[in-house]
Amino acid sequence: MPLYLTEADVNQLLTMPIAMDCLDEAFSAQARGEAVNTPRSRIPLSPGSYNLMSAAWHGKNVVGQKSYTASRAGVGFHVLIYSTTGEGLLAIIEANRMGQIRTGAASGLASKYMARPNSGTVAVIGSGYQGRTQLEAVATALNIDSARVYSRTKANREGFASMMTADLEIPVTAAASVEECVEGADVIIAITNSSEPVITGEHVWPGVHINAAGANGYLRRELDTAAVTKANVIATDDVAQAQIECADLMRPIEAGRLTWQQVKPLASIVGGETPGRNSDDDVTLFESQGIALEDVAVGERVYRMAVERGVGIQVP
Amino acid sequence: MPLYLTEADVNQLLTMPIAMDCLDEAFSAQARGEAVNTPRSRIPLSPGSYNLMSAAWHGKNVVGQKSYTASRAGVGFHVLIYSTTGEGLLAIIEANRMGQIRTGAASGLASKYMARPNSGTVAVIGSGYQGRTQLEAVATALNIDSARVYSRTKANREGFASMMTADLEIPVTAAASVEECVEGADVIIAITNSSEPVITGEHVWPGVHINAAGANGYLRRELDTAAVTKANVIATDDVAQAQIECADLMRPIEAGRLTWQQVKPLASIVGGETPGRNSDDDVTLFESQGIALEDVAVGERVYRMAVERGVGIQVP
Repeated sequence: MPLYLTEADVNQLLTMPIAMDCLDEAFSAQARGEAVNTPRSRIPLSPGSYNLMSAAWHGKNVVGQKSYTASRAGVGFHVLIYSTTGEGLLAIIEANRMGQIRTGAASGLASKYMARPNSGTVAVIGSGYQGRTQLEAVATALNIDSARVYSRTKANREGFASMMTADLEIPVTAAASVEECVEGADVIIAITNSSEPVITGEHVWPGVHINAAGANGYLRRELDTAAVTKANVIATDDVAQAQIECADLMRPIEAGRLTWQQVKPLASIVGGETPGRNSDDDVTLFESQGIALEDVAVGERVYRMAVERGVGIQVP
Repeated sequence: MPLYLTEADVNQLLTMPIAMDCLDEAFSAQARGEAVNTPRSRIPLSPGSYNLMSAAWHGKNVVGQKSYTASRAGVGFHVLIYSTTGEGLLAIIEANRMGQIRTGAASGLASKYMARPNSGTVAVIGSGYQGRTQLEAVATALNIDSARVYSRTKANREGFASMMTADLEIPVTAAASVEECVEGADVIIAITNSSEPVITGEHVWPGVHINAAGANGYLRRELDTAAVTKANVIATDDVAQAQIECADLMRPIEAGRLTWQQVKPLASIVGGETPGRNSDDDVTLFESQGIALEDVAVGERVYRMAVERGVGIQVP
């Protein structure tokens, strides 16, 4: 009988350090060929879309999927974890909060391997829920001493700044413009719903690491071509999925300014095949797609913790 | 909160006539562009595989998926039904029995539109669980007065014959060979695990309708090239999925003996765009893939009946 885990169950079990540890292990496994990811497929609805993606982590004997409908009425995410050794369906997990944490954790992991180790200042463009977990993850990965946030609505960025100051116990301040936000930052996080690029070539200087985690869908861009082509190392959590829906990369590649060969799997960096950066002056870019391997990896850990602690209910 | 429906719940609610009515409606909707199907994706496991497939039926405001792991340890199927109008996940349905019924119903539906209306005798090659629902469906679609069954193990075919005689209240007899089984049959059902063709060109004569429903995977064939190329009308429930995994069709097409243009979507026949047969002498062939639209269509109906009758439990 599968274990059903609610949002509250997940929230009680999963922390950012656990999620980051879990993804570190999962991407290392993928680098060794012990985990596989299948890109997201979408069915368009009116309005919104239905999304389905799957992955297997052979070393943990699990395979599974995330499915969700996204529309103006909201989003409902579910992750199913199956055993690969005959026990069938292990868990049905409500995965809204889990998705936010794993998306943050992927950026944290990329920052750990790609940002300068002495990075101290983070700029966040975007002040939604996902911005919080992005900043929390980068602060977990690096020894961050301050952060700035920009979003178009003053009240939102100020609310984010005061909440994150309290959560992370470092000064987080609101900036009045993208320029003011990113100036001198060691790490930039783009986590917006923008369809137009918010990070342009002028925002990119030697040594910076950028996590682009908001856009998702081939009509949406967060970085313009000048910003992307300044990067010396570009990584993404899944190249095949990026080829379908990462406009930040698709546009410069269509324009002949970049090739897919220059885009490295995050697994190859975590696994040590490809350096995350070659010098302190390198510009590094992580294009986050949000992939099923992240969901299955974190979902497996949450399931295992739930069993150990007696959390969740067996259904039916 | 989603409704969780067990195998027992499904068994209590779903009958073959309901499933056939449901698929008739779903394939008509697909013919009008009101339903879409996404082919199965598989992740290989050792041993076995993980399978995931999705579909939307816009007219019913549902979208969903079937997922399952298949290995020596057994198979566990689950269908998730989502609302497309913002209510999120509606149902989690255990779908082993439902899958058997919907696979039968698809062959029943094809037989309704493709077999000669006066068909009286059915031959079944294969005596497993799926053979029962295949024969039940064809008997529901047509005015069948007798059936014969062949499988390699005498006890299995005799058990099948006596069980189905009781279930369908028509004489069902065991045949000692494929030849004896198919001779003079109006409808032939192939529902085997065979990797070698069981139906060859000599088994195919004018007027016969064949449902090939067992093989699933590009290494498995039920019909040889001579049998397939004798067919005047060939249909399948999903051409895109057939192009990935229907060896019965892929092999003759690779050999230049057939083209994909000759393979018609079942929806075009149900929707009236393509005749199911042109004369009493036509040989007609339905290659059943088993597709997510069938699962979502039947799953939506089961969910709706469950709500009406108070069956199932709300989770968590």
